[in-house]
Amino acid sequence: MANIRLFVDHALAAGQLIPLTREQAHYLFSVMRLGVGDTVTVFNGSDGAWSCAVVEAGKKGGSLMAEAQSAPQVTPPDVALYFAPIKKARTDFIVEKAAELGVRQICPMQTDFTNSERIRQDRLQAHAVEAAEQCGGTYVPEVMALQKMSTLLNGWDAARQILFCDETLVDAQKAFPTATQGQPWAIFIGPEGGFSEAERDRLRALPQAHPVSLGPRVLRADTAAVAALTLWQHHLGDWQ
Amino acid sequence: MANIRLFVDHALAAGQLIPLTREQAHYLFSVMRLGVGDTVTVFNGSDGAWSCAVVEAGKKGGSLMAEAQSAPQVTPPDVALYFAPIKKARTDFIVEKAAELGVRQICPMQTDFTNSERIRQDRLQAHAVEAAEQCGGTYVPEVMALQKMSTLLNGWDAARQILFCDETLVDAQKAFPTATQGQPWAIFIGPEGGFSEAERDRLRALPQAHPVSLGPRVLRADTAAVAALTLWQHHLGDWQ
Repeated sequence: MANIRLFVDHALAAGQLIPLTREQAHYLFSVMRLGVGDTVTVFNGSDGAWSCAVVEAGKKGGSLMAEAQSAPQVTPPDVALYFAPIKKARTDFIVEKAAELGVRQICPMQTDFTNSERIRQDRLQAHAVEAAEQCGGTYVPEVMALQKMSTLLNGWDAARQILFCDETLVDAQKAFPTATQGQPWAIFIGPEGGFSEAERDRLRALPQAHPVSLGPRVLRADTAAVAALTLWQHHLGDWQ
Repeated sequence: MANIRLFVDHALAAGQLIPLTREQAHYLFSVMRLGVGDTVTVFNGSDGAWSCAVVEAGKKGGSLMAEAQSAPQVTPPDVALYFAPIKKARTDFIVEKAAELGVRQICPMQTDFTNSERIRQDRLQAHAVEAAEQCGGTYVPEVMALQKMSTLLNGWDAARQILFCDETLVDAQKAFPTATQGQPWAIFIGPEGGFSEAERDRLRALPQAHPVSLGPRVLRADTAAVAALTLWQHHLGDWQ
């Protein structure tokens, strides 16, 4: 049987009984056709992965019993991805890739050149859960509400460093920023069309903001998000 | 008017007349509603981008006249992406991202765990052209025919270095390989499920093969392709 993985919003410990939502019961018992005694892998974002047995299987609910931890908790370093929502499929893609590559939070932000003024926060959160379930993760990044970039920067935590992609840096020789261990970070990705001149000026004036170049070719916003996060994890995150 | 960009399979020089295919004429004159005297940006993969004027506009054909070069040719470094085709949408995604991030060739390869035995080479090539048109590129990577990985390695050019993602390297401390300037490279990405044990053994035994770790989380094949190519461009390519 394929290894079925399920995210639950419930404590996990040996002997712990986990009630299932209607959607979870439908997925496990109607779609995947599991029954009492079958096992699934369950994680909650903080207690690692647990092997759980089905103890009750109904059409509208059911429950699992946690038996043993099957994998330790792997929580990403303290980095958040701030991005300007774009077309639906590419926004979904950014959320999926951020969950795979490893971030703590996913923060949609409205910039001067952002077209969309609303996002479906619940749908994006469900997408992040699915990505973690499918990729063997034990952590699900929290999808935050859409906020204006100017509002975000007004209340910015002075300790949190910002990596931002500056298209005007193309061809510039620029070393990757260094950081002290454990410093919190944020990665800022602009919309198609990039940040406005005013936004770039504001970012450049922040002592904790570090520009990075992503090469001589123009990248789509979703590609830039994956590339910037890859470089961050490689240099400053848990890939080394 | 939006900057319309068109890839043509024709020489480009001042005063050069460029005949249009039926599909190109349909796109320019029926879809985008251009007429004689309007300008478009044209590139052919080797002569940079050229501003061209419409000199003849018909339902089934037409022609452009190259006026002036508007951007220099930017050809990616000599790196090829070898990947095992996966589901259609994710294969399309790999081709699009490879064209954006910059590779010379895109080489579908059949591995022990590859499900698909056929690819639509023409459709993937069209997808690479579209990615270059939309992202302001002047180069279109060539999409090669599907080949078996074992056949590829039997005839491998001894000078071409290989970067491959070794999932068993997770958590290993491993420096990024260095290289002499101008060395040709290839990036190998396995399918979902990774390379087989036999394939990994064969790669590891090659003196020109260099394993790389992409962190403690399991990445989908398409994510691994973008991440590996990003690291290659950052360390060994034209991003610095």
